[in-house]
Amino acid sequence: MEDYASRPLDTLNAARNKNVMVDMKNGYRYTGKLIAFDIHVNVVLNDAEEFQNGEAKRKLGTVFIRGDTITIINTA
Amino acid sequence: MEDYASRPLDTLNAARNKNVMVDMKNGYRYTGKLIAFDIHVNVVLNDAEEFQNGEAKRKLGTVFIRGDTITIINTA
Amino acid sequence: MEDYASRPLDTLNAARNKNVMVDMKNGYRYTGKLIAFDIHVNVVLNDAEEFQNGEAKRKLGTVFIRGDTITIINTA
Amino acid sequence: MEDYASRPLDTLNAARNKNVMVDMKNGYRYTGKLIAFDIHVNVVLNDAEEFQNGEAKRKLGTVFIRGDTITIINTA
Amino acid sequence: MEDYASRPLDTLNAARNKNVMVDMKNGYRYTGKLIAFDIHVNVVLNDAEEFQNGEAKRKLGTVFIRGDTITIINTA
Amino acid sequence: MEDYASRPLDTLNAARNKNVMVDMKNGYRYTGKLIAFDIHVNVVLNDAEEFQNGEAKRKLGTVFIRGDTITIINTA
Amino acid sequence: MEDYASRPLDTLNAARNKNVMVDMKNGYRYTGKLIAFDIHVNVVLNDAEEFQNGEAKRKLGTVFIRGDTITIINTA
Repeated sequence: MEDYASRPLDTLNAARNKNVMVDMKNGYRYTGKLIAFDIHVNVVLNDAEEFQNGEAKRKLGTVFIRGDTITIINTA
Repeated sequence: MEDYASRPLDTLNAARNKNVMVDMKNGYRYTGKLIAFDIHVNVVLNDAEEFQNGEAKRKLGTVFIRGDTITIINTA
Repeated sequence: MEDYASRPLDTLNAARNKNVMVDMKNGYRYTGKLIAFDIHVNVVLNDAEEFQNGEAKRKLGTVFIRGDTITIINTA
Repeated sequence: MEDYASRPLDTLNAARNKNVMVDMKNGYRYTGKLIAFDIHVNVVLNDAEEFQNGEAKRKLGTVFIRGDTITIINTA
Repeated sequence: MEDYASRPLDTLNAARNKNVMVDMKNGYRYTGKLIAFDIHVNVVLNDAEEFQNGEAKRKLGTVFIRGDTITIINTA
Repeated sequence: MEDYASRPLDTLNAARNKNVMVDMKNGYRYTGKLIAFDIHVNVVLNDAEEFQNGEAKRKLGTVFIRGDTITIINTA
Repeated sequence: MEDYASRPLDTLNAARNKNVMVDMKNGYRYTGKLIAFDIHVNVVLNDAEEFQNGEAKRKLGTVFIRGDTITIINTA
């Protein structure tokens, strides 16, 4: 009944290996290539960069982000 | 016993492909076309726009919003 | 053993299609006709209105309210 | 092994149809007759009254209180 | 393999009908005789007393304390 | 596949009957001998002592600490 | 369908016995060798060091970090 295209995680799946922007509850933002995610919305980014208040703070390489700290993921 | 029309997610289902307004615990608001949602109230909007304190801040394209950060979804 | 009349959700069920007042953790209040609810206490109101600090702020039509943001629902 | 009298919800059960005092994480207090509760500690009070900082604020009739907003229930 | 004496709830079980001190996330403290507890660490105290900032505030009789508001229980 | 030595709770198990330091979300710290823990990371310490801002505040004897209030456990 | 390389915990698995940096919701940071983790993202670090506001505060030896306090784990 529920068609595949209608699930939120499909949107993340379509963004694999593409650049995304992850906004956090603590106001930080991470950008990078989306390598992995799971149903808890834990995500892994490659070539990640950390921003605070719009300013680049650190280059991070590979970063695991715990899902419950995320507010939005901008995929395109 | 419980008839279909009485479930909250039915309201979201009826709003698919329509414009909705999503208010967040952190005071942000996102508007856009509702593309997908799940039982955790994770949602995906297309043609999304971000507002803070009533002011438009960014155009976001496609955005995945984690359900536990949402307070209300205004569907009509 | 547990008789039907003793469950909290029965109180919400008895309030379907009646006006209720929903108070939120963030201090907002929503009034409207209770259309739907589920075990997570997600609710949908029709003809909803939003209040902050006792002042009417917006008329919202149909609104989905995420259960984990609710403190009380005043049904009568 | 675990005897019935030793479960916290038994205390709530013994308080059905009696007056209780419910203290909330946000500092509010509700008093009223305990009509219903469930394992999430969602409760329903009749003839409820709302207090803030020790002052009576509103008479509420029937009120559904979401369990995760409660700190203590004083039953006697 | 896991021996009985090594589980945290055994410590609470050994404290039944003895005086305990319950510290809360909101800074309150409750003392009283431990009557009941469950796996969520919901507890019931008899002859309970409420303290704030080290000062006795109220005598409460029987009090149900929701587990997720508790930080520590001092049993001896 | 997953070998036993690689699970975080094994670290706690190896620390049984040894002195540990438990840091809390509210800034408190408890030291004592680790007597028990479970999968929720609820722990029990004997000969416990409470610290706030680095200062010893109380000797507590046996203390049950609710897992969801803990940030780290320093085992060695 | 879902291939193994696409899960976030695989990234943590690949980082076993390597140095990682763990950022916390309370602003603390822990560095050390990743010894263990589980599906709750509880982790254990050896040769751990604690930082606050970019300053080294303590050397901790072995530290168990509760998953729900973590925001990101920087693995490379």
